[in-house]
Amino acid sequence: MIRCVILGYGFLGRRLAKELALNRVEGVKLVGIASSKGHIYREKGFKSSELPEDITRASDFREGSSLELVDGRLADLLVELTPTNIRDGEPGLSHIRRALEEGMDVVTANKGPMALAYEELTGLAEERGVMLLYEATVGGGMPLISLQKRCLMADELLEIRGILNGTTNYILSRMHFEGMTFDLALREAQMLGIAERDPSLDINGIDTALKIVILANSLMNARRKLSDVKVKGIRKVTSEAVAAAKESGMAIKLIGTASEEELSVAPRLIKLGDPLCIHGTLNAVNFKLRILGNLTIIGEGAGESTVSALLNDIREVARARSG
Amino acid sequence: MIRCVILGYGFLGRRLAKELALNRVEGVKLVGIASSKGHIYREKGFKSSELPEDITRASDFREGSSLELVDGRLADLLVELTPTNIRDGEPGLSHIRRALEEGMDVVTANKGPMALAYEELTGLAEERGVMLLYEATVGGGMPLISLQKRCLMADELLEIRGILNGTTNYILSRMHFEGMTFDLALREAQMLGIAERDPSLDINGIDTALKIVILANSLMNARRKLSDVKVKGIRKVTSEAVAAAKESGMAIKLIGTASEEELSVAPRLIKLGDPLCIHGTLNAVNFKLRILGNLTIIGEGAGESTVSALLNDIREVARARSG
Repeated sequence: MIRCVILGYGFLGRRLAKELALNRVEGVKLVGIASSKGHIYREKGFKSSELPEDITRASDFREGSSLELVDGRLADLLVELTPTNIRDGEPGLSHIRRALEEGMDVVTANKGPMALAYEELTGLAEERGVMLLYEATVGGGMPLISLQKRCLMADELLEIRGILNGTTNYILSRMHFEGMTFDLALREAQMLGIAERDPSLDINGIDTALKIVILANSLMNARRKLSDVKVKGIRKVTSEAVAAAKESGMAIKLIGTASEEELSVAPRLIKLGDPLCIHGTLNAVNFKLRILGNLTIIGEGAGESTVSALLNDIREVARARSG
Repeated sequence: MIRCVILGYGFLGRRLAKELALNRVEGVKLVGIASSKGHIYREKGFKSSELPEDITRASDFREGSSLELVDGRLADLLVELTPTNIRDGEPGLSHIRRALEEGMDVVTANKGPMALAYEELTGLAEERGVMLLYEATVGGGMPLISLQKRCLMADELLEIRGILNGTTNYILSRMHFEGMTFDLALREAQMLGIAERDPSLDINGIDTALKIVILANSLMNARRKLSDVKVKGIRKVTSEAVAAAKESGMAIKLIGTASEEELSVAPRLIKLGDPLCIHGTLNAVNFKLRILGNLTIIGEGAGESTVSALLNDIREVARARSG
């Protein structure tokens, strides 16, 4: 039985804990949950009815560093779900590094560590013979990394292009369909909870750039850093530009691109009717392959759907470790 | 080294033979090619420059049944690419059955045997402990079967809906965008080689129905037959109906559906802007999953792209057999 701990107990952590406590993944037992304030550890596992909404109120809650749970004697698998920090990747980076050093497998939805320290972390995982899976860092639940690694490896991936940020896609879609200004569409998105109070990482294209770095390193064997991406956000996209595009049968979309030559994020004209031209909060990714040609994957790039990617990665660990 | 024979030497067979002769899949050697007229067997393998356009002209061509190559002493892997026959699945069905009985692994693009004898063939493969992979039977190179089995198994697939036939999608797209009648669009498709001279399997929805049966049996553990699918083709779709749909912001598409309740193929109204609403010869498949929600995959559903699915399945066999 694989003993699993979850670090980061926000929306994703709670939803995932529920699924694991319901034994949705055979061979995996949830034994620990940590937030920034402290943790709970239950060797015999959690029942679904025992999962606290607020862990600090549980009778066996212990204050202290989350790192206390990242201990090979207590757990075999770390699921790292703390918030993305693009400055230094912390605290996720330390969590993942420690877990790999402890010989634990790691599944994460945290873009920071994977974008900032891809080479170190994947190298460490290989050195220690453990698994490091991060499907949930890009495109929510959409299989992109596992899709290429498990279903497309006999072909050759030439280019990745995608709408990888639901917030900016929502804003651009409202500008396209309703003729809104950028500011109004942003305010609406904030009111609906689609954009954060400080939406700059999304709007400035940095969130998309992080994802493009992860995809390029992971799927195209690149060795790129965030600073290698030419990034242009959508703040200066005017309603006039959107309307002009629309009249020509196009839409302006924030597109992340990875090819052997370069990584970029910028607003680009996409033809209406192109599979990549999807609207609302959806994400869409196009893989250009040598033989297959163009393959497009579309789905919700955030929220609930991400739990699916986490469960699939956890299942992959369970499968590998069971036999 | 896995010794591979290809049965069926048309467009797909020739393209695949080329890739295998170039050693695109490590650990796999092409040793035999067969058409309906006879075969060539070369124990030491084919070099890419030695591949004949017409095998009957090769000096070592031998007349006779393709079945002579389906022999566990001569080969380890059968790639079955003979034409689909929806009446009795032959000759593909006999080829695949014999190969499995011989303890050979099988990779196929042939819809007939997989739709007509799914239970028999998968049962036989399991009994003999060999692999039977058929990603190429549905959606060309698009990973659908492997996508669900290798990337989405921790989630729960509730429904499949898709445009699974490029010919009918081309015809309906021309009716939608150009206001053509069905007959004119069909004739144009025939002139361009997109529709066959006898297009009835496509037009009547049978091709889509075969694919829906394969997807339902394979991905939803159904035990369905072609006769379980309610099938309605596109022959009676009028240009008036297409125009009326368009005015309401929709398009008429031939949609195959598989859910626990029923399998169906019918022309349906799809909203413009829906990820499934793609045009031209493209295919699109939507998986509805319990946690992930809707995932849509779009790609070329036939031709060259299919070679990618065959290579990925062959690679999967090589990977399983090498370790």
